Amino acid sequence: MRENGIRKIWDDGGAVVNGWLAIANSFSAEVMANAPFDSVTVDMQHGMVDFQAGVAMLQAISTRDVTPLARVPWNDPAAIMKILDAGAYGIVCPMINNREECERFVGACRYAPAGYRSFGPARGLIYGGPDYAQAANDTIITLAMIETSESLDNLDEIMTVPGLDAIYIGPSDLAISLGHLPQPDPTEPVVVEAIGTILKAAQRNGVRAGIHCANGAMVKRMTDQGFQFCTISNDVRLMAAAANAEISTARGN
Amino acid sequence: MRENGIRKIWDDGGAVVNGWLAIANSFSAEVMANAPFDSVTVDMQHGMVDFQAGVAMLQAISTRDVTPLARVPWNDPAAIMKILDAGAYGIVCPMINNREECERFVGACRYAPAGYRSFGPARGLIYGGPDYAQAANDTIITLAMIETSESLDNLDEIMTVPGLDAIYIGPSDLAISLGHLPQPDPTEPVVVEAIGTILKAAQRNGVRAGIHCANGAMVKRMTDQGFQFCTISNDVRLMAAAANAEISTARGN
Amino acid sequence: MRENGIRKIWDDGGAVVNGWLAIANSFSAEVMANAPFDSVTVDMQHGMVDFQAGVAMLQAISTRDVTPLARVPWNDPAAIMKILDAGAYGIVCPMINNREECERFVGACRYAPAGYRSFGPARGLIYGGPDYAQAANDTIITLAMIETSESLDNLDEIMTVPGLDAIYIGPSDLAISLGHLPQPDPTEPVVVEAIGTILKAAQRNGVRAGIHCANGAMVKRMTDQGFQFCTISNDVRLMAAAANAEISTARGN
Amino acid sequence: MRENGIRKIWDDGGAVVNGWLAIANSFSAEVMANAPFDSVTVDMQHGMVDFQAGVAMLQAISTRDVTPLARVPWNDPAAIMKILDAGAYGIVCPMINNREECERFVGACRYAPAGYRSFGPARGLIYGGPDYAQAANDTIITLAMIETSESLDNLDEIMTVPGLDAIYIGPSDLAISLGHLPQPDPTEPVVVEAIGTILKAAQRNGVRAGIHCANGAMVKRMTDQGFQFCTISNDVRLMAAAANAEISTARGN
Amino acid sequence: MRENGIRKIWDDGGAVVNGWLAIANSFSAEVMANAPFDSVTVDMQHGMVDFQAGVAMLQAISTRDVTPLARVPWNDPAAIMKILDAGAYGIVCPMINNREECERFVGACRYAPAGYRSFGPARGLIYGGPDYAQAANDTIITLAMIETSESLDNLDEIMTVPGLDAIYIGPSDLAISLGHLPQPDPTEPVVVEAIGTILKAAQRNGVRAGIHCANGAMVKRMTDQGFQFCTISNDVRLMAAAANAEISTARGN
Amino acid sequence: MRENGIRKIWDDGGAVVNGWLAIANSFSAEVMANAPFDSVTVDMQHGMVDFQAGVAMLQAISTRDVTPLARVPWNDPAAIMKILDAGAYGIVCPMINNREECERFVGACRYAPAGYRSFGPARGLIYGGPDYAQAANDTIITLAMIETSESLDNLDEIMTVPGLDAIYIGPSDLAISLGHLPQPDPTEPVVVEAIGTILKAAQRNGVRAGIHCANGAMVKRMTDQGFQFCTISNDVRLMAAAANAEISTARGN
Repeated sequence: MRENGIRKIWDDGGAVVNGWLAIANSFSAEVMANAPFDSVTVDMQHGMVDFQAGVAMLQAISTRDVTPLARVPWNDPAAIMKILDAGAYGIVCPMINNREECERFVGACRYAPAGYRSFGPARGLIYGGPDYAQAANDTIITLAMIETSESLDNLDEIMTVPGLDAIYIGPSDLAISLGHLPQPDPTEPVVVEAIGTILKAAQRNGVRAGIHCANGAMVKRMTDQGFQFCTISNDVRLMAAAANAEISTARGN
Repeated sequence: MRENGIRKIWDDGGAVVNGWLAIANSFSAEVMANAPFDSVTVDMQHGMVDFQAGVAMLQAISTRDVTPLARVPWNDPAAIMKILDAGAYGIVCPMINNREECERFVGACRYAPAGYRSFGPARGLIYGGPDYAQAANDTIITLAMIETSESLDNLDEIMTVPGLDAIYIGPSDLAISLGHLPQPDPTEPVVVEAIGTILKAAQRNGVRAGIHCANGAMVKRMTDQGFQFCTISNDVRLMAAAANAEISTARGN
Repeated sequence: MRENGIRKIWDDGGAVVNGWLAIANSFSAEVMANAPFDSVTVDMQHGMVDFQAGVAMLQAISTRDVTPLARVPWNDPAAIMKILDAGAYGIVCPMINNREECERFVGACRYAPAGYRSFGPARGLIYGGPDYAQAANDTIITLAMIETSESLDNLDEIMTVPGLDAIYIGPSDLAISLGHLPQPDPTEPVVVEAIGTILKAAQRNGVRAGIHCANGAMVKRMTDQGFQFCTISNDVRLMAAAANAEISTARGN
Repeated sequence: MRENGIRKIWDDGGAVVNGWLAIANSFSAEVMANAPFDSVTVDMQHGMVDFQAGVAMLQAISTRDVTPLARVPWNDPAAIMKILDAGAYGIVCPMINNREECERFVGACRYAPAGYRSFGPARGLIYGGPDYAQAANDTIITLAMIETSESLDNLDEIMTVPGLDAIYIGPSDLAISLGHLPQPDPTEPVVVEAIGTILKAAQRNGVRAGIHCANGAMVKRMTDQGFQFCTISNDVRLMAAAANAEISTARGN
Repeated sequence: MRENGIRKIWDDGGAVVNGWLAIANSFSAEVMANAPFDSVTVDMQHGMVDFQAGVAMLQAISTRDVTPLARVPWNDPAAIMKILDAGAYGIVCPMINNREECERFVGACRYAPAGYRSFGPARGLIYGGPDYAQAANDTIITLAMIETSESLDNLDEIMTVPGLDAIYIGPSDLAISLGHLPQPDPTEPVVVEAIGTILKAAQRNGVRAGIHCANGAMVKRMTDQGFQFCTISNDVRLMAAAANAEISTARGN
Repeated sequence: MRENGIRKIWDDGGAVVNGWLAIANSFSAEVMANAPFDSVTVDMQHGMVDFQAGVAMLQAISTRDVTPLARVPWNDPAAIMKILDAGAYGIVCPMINNREECERFVGACRYAPAGYRSFGPARGLIYGGPDYAQAANDTIITLAMIETSESLDNLDEIMTVPGLDAIYIGPSDLAISLGHLPQPDPTEPVVVEAIGTILKAAQRNGVRAGIHCANGAMVKRMTDQGFQFCTISNDVRLMAAAANAEISTARGN
């Protein structure tokens, strides 16, 4: 089976720089995959993307040597299994609150006996290779989002679920759940502290820690702190920021 | 009929800052239309966009107070009339080489007796208003691209076609036609000179001059020279440039 | 945040006349939004519409000054949150049977601590405005469908869920659940009586009452009775009825 | 090859009542095809429809016993041949001005030696049957639009082109070309007179006469005058008219 | 209501040969429906197909006299009800483990009081006919997949759920759940034995037995054993196998 | 610029085995590209495919090490240039009758001064590489279809157009133009003879000869005769043939 580039980076002690796609389009997906990201994630939760577009986007990503991932809209086995069948090499699952939810998530990504994923990896087989059935459980990556106050009480229970590879922090939801407004780059002490707590728990439990970042500078800070999977904003915010900056220059502002 | 914002800016002596869409997606179109552009153009020539996506993109653009335009793939009345019916308020037409081609282009944008546009402005009627039939000929804007060596020999013949509102320079094709590699921001003296020649011809003939620009800085320079319709790169190049810059920061390069 | 027009009508004591979209197309959506409805609902349950089309339809609706809503296929947080992120200003949720289901529904529409909605309002932020995070909980409208016999036993428990704005009657399912065939404009006494009971319960509990109507005449009757959110059939049935009537005239029948 | 229902009606001396589709959606197409039209036309000129949607619409139409037609955006062999390959059983071609244009149009619909259509009737073969190659030239219907002042000077030259089955009047363009505003149901004497002239020329030359009508009442009048192919408005205008009427009733206006 | 062809074959003691669609395209769906299958199933679980494409595929299937079915991605009432509304005449539901799950599945396919399906059969009404409400519960077919080890312990409990018409074996998942690699045509004794056990239980409980087969030869064997609903591989594997065989011939291998 | 695999095969004296796509779907395109074809062609003429689907199909093809080509619907610069911009590495152009048409075709594929292609290779730049502008003229392949009786009179004039790489025979149209029914594998002596004549002319003029074949056996025969670009039927006919064969086996026929 085709190697998962993320596992290789992690085995080498490195940190993954991840792109994020909210535009339901395979051309913009290929353009993003052509930038020097290590992995690119199709965001089917807050992105304006559903399955049919997601398939074409995964195809576009896999024209490049970059690992294709997907964030599912919810901890729902149907959504998880479908996008894995479409060739995603890892799943980011939102709002994992406790061990039971994490087991349900991870189980949906693994064939029996490790889990309860149903077999039929249509495009996954083409992308992954003919030994997909044998190797998928060890290749596909699972990332559980830690972003609610309930999850903060259950960090170890969540992180010790067998088959969980990484956790992924959503700073905006984490901030809201702690009583603050969402912040792309958190400065509220209680949120910053929670991020540190989660990172330590991940390191303690031997899972990788990931976080959504507002920009490249935040990625740098987070990887320096020990995060190993950091996303840079997303396609549409990068575009909007660049457009606004260029328009200002154009107008001489 | 809803006013064409571009005509208003021109009447006030101003210059239009135009956005450019190569991604066939209505969400990215709305994000671009939400930036402070004066107009946004759906590029159906070199953009990865055809009619069906173009309709949804024009709808997305018209959620904002920004003028929706389209570049057609070729000087073809079918393509021109269809996207006008979909609500485009102006057409950029590539590769106008001579007066006859320009008349064919402008005629496709105008109802008889000014032209030969066929009547049936499906979405245009909703966007423009119930007096579309009466007012469209005076509202819709026509921009003929000047980008071939043949057109350089026919500047006055082209620019005096009744109903032509503006010309639009494609620097890359102009450079190629003059024997050079394409350049987003031309520095070859012969290309720079040709741009100046075209601008002067436009001013002499009372049509507005537009040009595709590599970035905001080039827009500033061009509007200072007298151009009144300047495009900033496009959606996908803005996104790619921003992604590359942020990745460099992220990796500490 | 952009005001929710429905709240304004309700605050003024008026009744909302709502359009309903079963055709997965942004052009027909814009045509419907161009009729003088107060709000237009994308029907993702019985309409032939899923998320990707729904986004474009919400964009089309928001080219007009009419409130965009969506009916979700089921009481499923993934579906609810995604279409809110796409800019829906209210959710109609089918088959709410009891208080727990209603809490689950309303919670999916509200950020913590009022609910458990995940933050990332991609298009919603553009449509709603930059203070979306602060104002969304007070702006977005929740409508729980009352249409099963179980729900008739739990009217007060359902209607007193904090954050519920309105209930919405589906006459066809209500009739079926009471042992009759579906009727667009109910005449069976037991169904008519149930509708009255639900209306009274809504008034008693301070939530608005809505109902799906077969046509404008039924809307008139229902608003006279006190309903404040009435839907007129849907796009495709309006079209089919008009086509049949005109064909009869054409054939001299 | 499956019979063309329009030829049968014509052979029986009857008049075809035709539906018209401007919405690019296969569900609304099927709903329209389910009304008792004799034929339904996918409008790829002024409809918001291009080829990909057109294929699905033709499939939807052919779930019913009604003849599927298409109007092409222009007298362009690529567009004509593609939609024939997709299973259209007749083509309405806009703006035929003279004999040469009519020959170009009809030739695109006929295999050699009658014309120059290229062979490869992908879906047409499934819909039409295995003897498509032998029978298509006699089954497919050609309708040339007469709607410009130039065409009024060339009626006999146009109508005697071998293989032309019918002409089709576009009243709006005809009115514009005669110096008036477009009218769905013409009352201007010069336009009314031109319609009569065209009808007589068709009868004189043995081709069927068709016309686009504003509503069923106009169809009745036109078929009484001798027209044998009459369209009732289109999907989206039927829907909008019905919506407006029901809203008025709902609001008690 | 239009008869369900599968019920007729079963009543006549015959076996259904079923096609399977993993390509999200209505043209390939029509081509498959044009082959002499008795029924064709849109695979929304492992196929690369979601709802919007599924609607168009069901339309394409129903241009032919073949029964349209769908496999849903999961035992989820939203997915089941939506595709029934789109005109599916039967549902294959994956991974039914026990009686409760089977009741949940079957109930989603039946209107009250037999189940809890919500009424609004948009396209189903057109395809099925005006008495859909009365006849749907007796027309729509339910097929529960037996493919997990848990289900093997609950065969009778599952198969005696009122309203269940058939069970359907997924050999690959069954093999995995029994500790083996997936096999399109099982040879592992324990898997073969389990298939026999399931068949006997079905016959004992008066439900039909179905199974997914690798090819036509396996269908022949399975129908000879008593299976009455057998699928031949799927669209994309048939295509790939044919392509590989022809390429070998072409290269003289 | 990424090498064109077809040129390499030709330089090595080999023959290209080409796949052909009529299904507008990126998953089936990837499945076909995964078979051991040397190149795969998106058929935008007789395939049920237009531009938007074509882009996603080219992306899918380029996940594999196989050369992506497209057949355009007509000798139209708009269609040719757009699909080249989308990353096609060669164009098959139908119905080239004479030198002028061939020049028009080839010119649309070449930047000035070799032709008149407009610059803006959106996806082509990503697929081909940053030196696309310099190398495209030498990399992109042009294949002119010889399939009409007129072309048989102009073989040398056509084949000596500078920049033409190959001719491609469409046996069905060739048969029709010679007065016979279309045949996938021609046996009519006059058609067989014409094929031989064309092959010889190609060899005489130093362009490669290609032909559309009914199956792998015909490819073998044609490559043995000297053809160097042979297509095997298409995706949908391979699928249909396989389905029919397996159904026969299943039914014991």
